[in-house]
Amino acid sequence: MKTERKWDTLASDTRQRMEAAARYIGPGKQVKKEDTVALLKSVIRSFDRVNIEGNNQKQADFLADCLLQVDPAEINNLHMVQSCVPLASHLDMFEKGIAKRLDFAFGGPQAARVAKFIREGKIELGAIHTYLELFGRYFLDLTPRVSLICAYEADREGNLYTGFNTEDTPVIVEATKFRQGIVIAQVNKIVDKLPRVDIPAGWVDAVIESPKPFFIEPLFTRDPGLVTDNHILLAMMALKGIYGEYKVKRLNHGIGFLTSAIELILPTYGEELGLKGECCTHMVLNPHPTMIPAIEAGWVDTIHCFGGELGMEEYVRARSDVFFTGPDGSLRSNRAFAQTAGHYALDMFIGGTLQIDKFGNSSTATANRVAGFGGAPNMGCDSKGRRHVTDSWLKCGQEVPNMHDLIGDMPRGKRLVVQGVETFGEARAPSFVDKLDAWKLAENAKLDLPPVMIYGDDVTHIITEDGIAYLNRAPNMDVRMAAIRAVAGYTEIGLAEDPAETKRLREAKIFQTPEDLGIDRSRANRDLLAARSMRDLVDISGGLYNPPTRFRNW
Amino acid sequence: MKTERKWDTLASDTRQRMEAAARYIGPGKQVKKEDTVALLKSVIRSFDRVNIEGNNQKQADFLADCLLQVDPAEINNLHMVQSCVPLASHLDMFEKGIAKRLDFAFGGPQAARVAKFIREGKIELGAIHTYLELFGRYFLDLTPRVSLICAYEADREGNLYTGFNTEDTPVIVEATKFRQGIVIAQVNKIVDKLPRVDIPAGWVDAVIESPKPFFIEPLFTRDPGLVTDNHILLAMMALKGIYGEYKVKRLNHGIGFLTSAIELILPTYGEELGLKGECCTHMVLNPHPTMIPAIEAGWVDTIHCFGGELGMEEYVRARSDVFFTGPDGSLRSNRAFAQTAGHYALDMFIGGTLQIDKFGNSSTATANRVAGFGGAPNMGCDSKGRRHVTDSWLKCGQEVPNMHDLIGDMPRGKRLVVQGVETFGEARAPSFVDKLDAWKLAENAKLDLPPVMIYGDDVTHIITEDGIAYLNRAPNMDVRMAAIRAVAGYTEIGLAEDPAETKRLREAKIFQTPEDLGIDRSRANRDLLAARSMRDLVDISGGLYNPPTRFRNW
Repeated sequence: MKTERKWDTLASDTRQRMEAAARYIGPGKQVKKEDTVALLKSVIRSFDRVNIEGNNQKQADFLADCLLQVDPAEINNLHMVQSCVPLASHLDMFEKGIAKRLDFAFGGPQAARVAKFIREGKIELGAIHTYLELFGRYFLDLTPRVSLICAYEADREGNLYTGFNTEDTPVIVEATKFRQGIVIAQVNKIVDKLPRVDIPAGWVDAVIESPKPFFIEPLFTRDPGLVTDNHILLAMMALKGIYGEYKVKRLNHGIGFLTSAIELILPTYGEELGLKGECCTHMVLNPHPTMIPAIEAGWVDTIHCFGGELGMEEYVRARSDVFFTGPDGSLRSNRAFAQTAGHYALDMFIGGTLQIDKFGNSSTATANRVAGFGGAPNMGCDSKGRRHVTDSWLKCGQEVPNMHDLIGDMPRGKRLVVQGVETFGEARAPSFVDKLDAWKLAENAKLDLPPVMIYGDDVTHIITEDGIAYLNRAPNMDVRMAAIRAVAGYTEIGLAEDPAETKRLREAKIFQTPEDLGIDRSRANRDLLAARSMRDLVDISGGLYNPPTRFRNW
Repeated sequence: MKTERKWDTLASDTRQRMEAAARYIGPGKQVKKEDTVALLKSVIRSFDRVNIEGNNQKQADFLADCLLQVDPAEINNLHMVQSCVPLASHLDMFEKGIAKRLDFAFGGPQAARVAKFIREGKIELGAIHTYLELFGRYFLDLTPRVSLICAYEADREGNLYTGFNTEDTPVIVEATKFRQGIVIAQVNKIVDKLPRVDIPAGWVDAVIESPKPFFIEPLFTRDPGLVTDNHILLAMMALKGIYGEYKVKRLNHGIGFLTSAIELILPTYGEELGLKGECCTHMVLNPHPTMIPAIEAGWVDTIHCFGGELGMEEYVRARSDVFFTGPDGSLRSNRAFAQTAGHYALDMFIGGTLQIDKFGNSSTATANRVAGFGGAPNMGCDSKGRRHVTDSWLKCGQEVPNMHDLIGDMPRGKRLVVQGVETFGEARAPSFVDKLDAWKLAENAKLDLPPVMIYGDDVTHIITEDGIAYLNRAPNMDVRMAAIRAVAGYTEIGLAEDPAETKRLREAKIFQTPEDLGIDRSRANRDLLAARSMRDLVDISGGLYNPPTRFRNW
């Protein structure tokens, strides 16, 4: 049975590559920035799986630019396996033919170009993932051969400090380095002593001090000045009809203005409802500036972060009882572990979407943009491996009338997955549609399945200005669809509503209007916000929050 | 709104504790073994959340023994948050009143004592988790205040080498240390230079060279000599009726003899079926010795491991193309990332159970044993956040006739979750029951819900000696229950079978007998095994596999 097969081909191939690269690598694994392109040429081969670090925040942009300078006649058909492709250079790689295949989680500003390149055959799309799913595949069938990562600092041995924006670095490096891969880091600075070691030198093959600090974007900053009365109405409904109803302690907030509005009325309306200590005590969340008032008012016990948020460095450092920080005082973010907590430890995920179909499936995809969903599918699904019980999870499951069809007489809880939308979104586009644009995208971009962000059987509640659909209480698909029609306002879906049916749904508490919930619409205005401007946030933080320039509007 | 609240109480409390401990901690964070109890007294306070590392393999046993020596009048009511409690000392802690509350994932040999202590009020049970769920909670609401971990070696600065059995160490240390907690490591040896750094010194507060190496158990070693003809019949059905039918490439194997039998007939029956290269190319799996013949025959591309397995060290080192190994050559296991891959990257989980109820819910719980389920719920559920498509996942979902009730016209795949059991198990106990013993356990141990290992709506296939129930093809609960009766043999559940109904199920391919699958029962014997003994495994490994003494039966 024994063959003469070699069993260390990866290791010996890596040795050969590193020998070719040796001339560029000095003591402490340091490489001169002007040698970076040559280094990449030595260690990367056509058809390699390559990861360029970059989530929706920090970016290994210098290394991406350098990879773009290799000759596509020499290096081509790379298979990019990485969280995000938000930089132009990420797509230019495909334009030039250096890269060919793509597996990722989020497209950001390049979403339209991704779709176009797929149609034109410049990108062969593997799949769109949720982050934790992609990280899981790094350890099985999508392990990077070479990873180009970024860190704040390296020391003279090659240890790395990733600090506030640790984010994806540890999971990328571990998957790559422990399968004989090659790890190259760009750092903002090489120093004598690091504040702390985040990545041991032995896990890194080369370090380059980049010509300028890595690109980083404040993606989770929402200016309270832009919160509208409608956002506040939805936020009030969420707090009274869901947070209070289910006593939700452990949750994540999505990225939109609805959740900012919720954050900003916790210390006002939330306090009035008696929810302090009962709700929002534990969160998996980037350091949202709009959480400052609630944190200062003592609502929050713990926040674990996927990544950092520009301007929140000093605030987080001064609030180590709440945030995870290192012995050096700076935040330790970690997307892999935050998403793990996000999947298994949260009782609720609440966020927005672009479209919801008549069955409750939702997506942010449009016909010509391959956007991806980031962490939403991971947190916005029922985590079926979960076995611990909390009151809110149990109540949500106990309300499901047709659990018997699934698991007989066995009781089970269910995660609250809440979608909050105004019935008409940007440019008056309806949020409720007969068929998701995701179907058209699947056709245009040759995807195996329409890219659904959250499937209908995972959504438990939909909030609009019309009220809340308690989909978890619907006994079957017909009632579920009726409840969706009830919250769908003047969209085509909503216009198909049968008033008699909606009345029955109200009585059964499967649909509730703001009035049913005892919410006074006239109070839904900006007076309810604990902070009404960026300046307020700075003041409430005691000057610890330092917003990026573009948010400094006072 | 600003309060005079202090925001660094955790950090200052930790400082105080470490000042009290300073007299015991020498250069390189070293503590003399005889000072360990005093050290623990200095850094642990009553009501602390404490983690003692130990999964079903390596154990921080010396530190557990030392903690047991503190005076319960001084330190009591500890809240233990840890993967497993397999050692007597773990339970003695509750007996003596040092510990009070328990959140864990797996009980192992102490399962009966856990149940007894709960009844007697000596343990307040938080919950039984699946590993990744518990790890997630470490970053949210169950963060350890003090963690007692184990490693092979430390260097003179306090860096740790966890090597082959890295297992849970990184996730425990990260959660603890970055929320101002205290990390204490027992190591087998302090050395000048580590083979590699797994945990940076800055993440560790104290290091003790323990009087003897940590306890470790070969839990995943199955002697091929104990594989029966019945196991082989089930294995043949699995290969032809499921692996081959769905072309399953990416999977995990549970711990029982069924999956060992499958592993051992891959190079014989599997090859005959033409499945080489089509199935079992990527696995998340401990280094099972019974995988050696299939690996040597070239079946496997990649294996990522939760932990190590005694005796497999040299084999793994020599097969770095297959296993994840460090630059030093030794395995890098990592339970958190392996379970992440297990949840999101696998198309199939196949394992055994003790009981299956008439609805398809299954559990290994009995009335008086709180055993826990380890990784099974995490891998043995439909991972609903998954968005990438593989053929086997898509086919399994497309066969679900009632998907419309869940998500309307939206197509979706489904993970294959296979339970393989003989209709009567140990001591002739029926594997199919009207009601799971888990209900009695819930009552006896005051659990909120019966501890179900895999819920009925997640199980897609059940294999017994009678055939395969393709539950994913059942249009509703009635048909699902009929398919379960069809495979349930002479158990009470099976005796309720209606032959006419079973005939219809066979025609609809919702139930298939071995004969329907074209399997010749007479070939189900040990001649089909690629290795028939431990000695065979050693030979096939070219002498690289070195079984523990108790398995050396030649």
